[in-house]
Amino acid sequence: MPKPPHNWGRWGSDDQQGALNHLTPAAVLAALGAAREGRVHSLAMPIRGATSGPAPTTVPHLAGRPLPQHFMSIDGGDYAAGVRAAGARIADDALVLSPHGTTTHMDALCHMWAGEELYNGHPAARVRSYGATRLGIEHAAARGVLARGVLLDAAAHRGVTHLRATDRIGANELAAICARDGTDPGPGDVVVIRTGWPRVWTEDPAIYGSGQPGLAADAGRWLAERDVVMVAMDNAAIQGLGADGRSSEDADDDLHLTLLWRSGIHLAEMLWLDGLAEALAEVRRSDFLFIAVPLPIEGGTGSPINPLAVL
Amino acid sequence: MPKPPHNWGRWGSDDQQGALNHLTPAAVLAALGAAREGRVHSLAMPIRGATSGPAPTTVPHLAGRPLPQHFMSIDGGDYAAGVRAAGARIADDALVLSPHGTTTHMDALCHMWAGEELYNGHPAARVRSYGATRLGIEHAAARGVLARGVLLDAAAHRGVTHLRATDRIGANELAAICARDGTDPGPGDVVVIRTGWPRVWTEDPAIYGSGQPGLAADAGRWLAERDVVMVAMDNAAIQGLGADGRSSEDADDDLHLTLLWRSGIHLAEMLWLDGLAEALAEVRRSDFLFIAVPLPIEGGTGSPINPLAVL
Amino acid sequence: MPKPPHNWGRWGSDDQQGALNHLTPAAVLAALGAAREGRVHSLAMPIRGATSGPAPTTVPHLAGRPLPQHFMSIDGGDYAAGVRAAGARIADDALVLSPHGTTTHMDALCHMWAGEELYNGHPAARVRSYGATRLGIEHAAARGVLARGVLLDAAAHRGVTHLRATDRIGANELAAICARDGTDPGPGDVVVIRTGWPRVWTEDPAIYGSGQPGLAADAGRWLAERDVVMVAMDNAAIQGLGADGRSSEDADDDLHLTLLWRSGIHLAEMLWLDGLAEALAEVRRSDFLFIAVPLPIEGGTGSPINPLAVL
Amino acid sequence: MPKPPHNWGRWGSDDQQGALNHLTPAAVLAALGAAREGRVHSLAMPIRGATSGPAPTTVPHLAGRPLPQHFMSIDGGDYAAGVRAAGARIADDALVLSPHGTTTHMDALCHMWAGEELYNGHPAARVRSYGATRLGIEHAAARGVLARGVLLDAAAHRGVTHLRATDRIGANELAAICARDGTDPGPGDVVVIRTGWPRVWTEDPAIYGSGQPGLAADAGRWLAERDVVMVAMDNAAIQGLGADGRSSEDADDDLHLTLLWRSGIHLAEMLWLDGLAEALAEVRRSDFLFIAVPLPIEGGTGSPINPLAVL
Repeated sequence: MPKPPHNWGRWGSDDQQGALNHLTPAAVLAALGAAREGRVHSLAMPIRGATSGPAPTTVPHLAGRPLPQHFMSIDGGDYAAGVRAAGARIADDALVLSPHGTTTHMDALCHMWAGEELYNGHPAARVRSYGATRLGIEHAAARGVLARGVLLDAAAHRGVTHLRATDRIGANELAAICARDGTDPGPGDVVVIRTGWPRVWTEDPAIYGSGQPGLAADAGRWLAERDVVMVAMDNAAIQGLGADGRSSEDADDDLHLTLLWRSGIHLAEMLWLDGLAEALAEVRRSDFLFIAVPLPIEGGTGSPINPLAVL
Repeated sequence: MPKPPHNWGRWGSDDQQGALNHLTPAAVLAALGAAREGRVHSLAMPIRGATSGPAPTTVPHLAGRPLPQHFMSIDGGDYAAGVRAAGARIADDALVLSPHGTTTHMDALCHMWAGEELYNGHPAARVRSYGATRLGIEHAAARGVLARGVLLDAAAHRGVTHLRATDRIGANELAAICARDGTDPGPGDVVVIRTGWPRVWTEDPAIYGSGQPGLAADAGRWLAERDVVMVAMDNAAIQGLGADGRSSEDADDDLHLTLLWRSGIHLAEMLWLDGLAEALAEVRRSDFLFIAVPLPIEGGTGSPINPLAVL
Repeated sequence: MPKPPHNWGRWGSDDQQGALNHLTPAAVLAALGAAREGRVHSLAMPIRGATSGPAPTTVPHLAGRPLPQHFMSIDGGDYAAGVRAAGARIADDALVLSPHGTTTHMDALCHMWAGEELYNGHPAARVRSYGATRLGIEHAAARGVLARGVLLDAAAHRGVTHLRATDRIGANELAAICARDGTDPGPGDVVVIRTGWPRVWTEDPAIYGSGQPGLAADAGRWLAERDVVMVAMDNAAIQGLGADGRSSEDADDDLHLTLLWRSGIHLAEMLWLDGLAEALAEVRRSDFLFIAVPLPIEGGTGSPINPLAVL
Repeated sequence: MPKPPHNWGRWGSDDQQGALNHLTPAAVLAALGAAREGRVHSLAMPIRGATSGPAPTTVPHLAGRPLPQHFMSIDGGDYAAGVRAAGARIADDALVLSPHGTTTHMDALCHMWAGEELYNGHPAARVRSYGATRLGIEHAAARGVLARGVLLDAAAHRGVTHLRATDRIGANELAAICARDGTDPGPGDVVVIRTGWPRVWTEDPAIYGSGQPGLAADAGRWLAERDVVMVAMDNAAIQGLGADGRSSEDADDDLHLTLLWRSGIHLAEMLWLDGLAEALAEVRRSDFLFIAVPLPIEGGTGSPINPLAVL
């Protein structure tokens, strides 16, 4: 039987916001104040639909996932080919997207659970094939995430470009990074953790999926105890993945269960953090304004996001 | 031959940002300062995929457009039905989306043009069926839009719940609203204009598509002259639409051409503004922090967005 | 409690073919012999993806269903616009399709049921969100449907272009049509029934969905008793639909339950039968070679089909 | 400059059927007569949508192509989870498909060309981003393909399970197989050629895409000279592919250009032929009734098909 829930009932038995409840107006104002210079960095990987030729996919993703597809329904070529239009000409398109494992995205609280109940005791049976009728991503979309962001750069801490697939980041390491940087992530903060893992895609895409570095179980509990609002990483699954592409933690240790399910802490994966890490290092800071605005997909298990960091 | 371009070359012949160039770090800091209380409002309509029964679509949209589709690829029902999972259980989904005319979205600068060239002289032939290789929405996604927002509430100005389908908002009316509110939208601002039109969907969906209120041609030029960064409205096409669902302006007067094409001013449509209008009226303000973060869809003609207003 | 099943166990407790079991090699040869002249007629409605402008959808469909979407991922316009290709040039496309209610399609035996069991007692819980693990359309795709087809033209029988929305075709009427035509549909036959209903789409699309003619409950039982292989019609739901777009039959009388669920008789809807009816009338026949080949969509609840009639 | 066209104008300057013109009523009757026993074999690979876990794709396909996606929009799990339905319960689904390179499919005549004109001189500019307005697959769907099929089993001829990636089948080899089998494919026939290549997917998916066996240029011309209606193979591109996944033939030798473009001969790829080869060998035959019925996708560049062989 998995460990008892950490935050259930804390914000009421009907709550569907989880730790986003920390983002009061005062917290939002304080978050906005974390921006000192006004320099904006996008933390998203590009969304590239598959192409028509045998081109390899050039964006890191988990193997076997349905990849983004992007189609133009009318475009410049049509006019070059003879379509006539009085006045304005138009380009229009469509996107097919399964965000988990394929692009920078945010998990809804309904994304993972154990047993018969979702976070805060909502029945798992409420997650239907036409959508999750509880804890869908639209609840996070209602006000987005405007919070103070804190970067914990595990790759820099270890003096490497990127961690190895078998590396796990434990609570002690997170504490050491904080001590080194003089930061202290707490209630209402978004903790952004860098492994550097997307770098390996350019070396060899096959390496990307054959295991991934991630947080160890005690690191998840460490973050939960600090009452953070959200954890965002540049790997695909927060916790590490083995060579088979699967996690090995049991229900007590699974990071998604510790954070999403027990604590109502939202997660974001597959961020691109190298630019941010460099920019923060230049000004010897590790905190910034973090902005993530999921789409209000009713009943969604997550949303693609383009998170911004404002220094 | 359409009128000569307004902002072409202003930020260099290769520029693909248009008026977003106004959003310097200083402008971003000033924008963040427009938030006084930290109260956040989402300005997006929900994204609801079609359902399996004969349920009517409950979100306003232009008739004939490909509507959002949302599918769960695994959900709670699977576990209720007997799927076994050691440890964590998971819900996963997919989204099919053609944002123009179906949901709250932002237009890229490649979305509309006249003749053979896009904004700033980029060849229209660069808009290919696998994406726009110039002026795609990823350029706006690079830093999103963090700007001071100014609400011009045309419906409140006229003392009505919503404008009529045949109503057009002219430059004089925008000026009058500004005078009444004591606002002065200028360089780097996002002008948000309310018609109240989405309200009619609940009265009768058929009315929604049989014409729409919008800006008159001179209002577009008035906004362009003020060097705004972006224009966002709660109608579907910025300009009005006739009973046939089409615009009647010629190339000189078309609002998309005036703003996107000539001036490099981004557009957003199908916002939900009623909640924001009410909140601003309560505190007798009309300006706020406006946040819009499109997805980095490479070569995209637009992106769904969940714009936020922070008061 | 719905009536006890008609064909459960008839072909073994594991059977997933239902009445398709009638299509032995001998039956297939006999079916091929039903073609006398070699004239081929397609019985499918066109598949038209939504377009980019405000064009109305021109193919009959049930309101609220997710309509077909068709996108070119590379096309002639790209080459006109300057894409260079040594040698061959290529056009490529994608299709998004939810066949039920939107196009000519065949229902799998898993498509509908009552209670906890599908046809032949297979557990309904086997129909998962990643597909139906029992009775998916791939079972019908294994050998397709090559059978003798018999047209029962209810519209011609009533001397009308098309039935009215409230019309229901009962067993007596089917028997009368057979007597008039000198046909006797029996084991292994596919019965094709014409209402003429698609004609109303061109008169007024709004009429198409505000009720539909169809079979009455006793007609379903009449067909089941004759051991037919499949029933194919030009309406959207076999049974009639009320003004609200829903069926009014209870579980005992529901035609899908009578045919698919109790009898393992496959169904096809939204055929186009006017051309076939005319061709058969010219040669004073009502039987032909019927060919329907669903796609092997594993776990599918149905498939788009392009049924052929060979006279 | 590519070689002059072979069949242009042969069936009139407006013709969009190409060699399908051979399938007269008499030819169709003769084709039906090729079925002796009534045993039906499907020649299609299964269509499996991607799943939610890290499952590998289990159906051969060309790397980098957008793979099939299959989603249930309502299923048995919903009812197990508590959805109530008076009477009938329903399962419904959606399919996203880019057929070329991902599933058993048929190419339309608009799929490939050289220069500015499609087969029979139709302007390539007519292939628009909303569909091909000439030579779309709907022309083949009008009557499908009911023809005598002839299997030329190159793998059996060479005494191997499957050809090697670098193997090319030349005209001499086709002639030798015919001589050995006592067959003589001619006008109106569908030639089905087996390489055995899909077998390698089970050995190692990586091998499948690193080159493929196929027809040599002179084999294409040999088939065109015999006036066949269609060529169907179990490889992905008719001609061979190099280790880079691309063809190496120039415009004069490209098999798609020889067959589709010059001769109006339709193509089908990614068939599964092992079962058919075995069944034919057992009865010492090589001809059968061949049935291929593409979907009437207006303006489509191809269609998924479930080809049948009836012995």
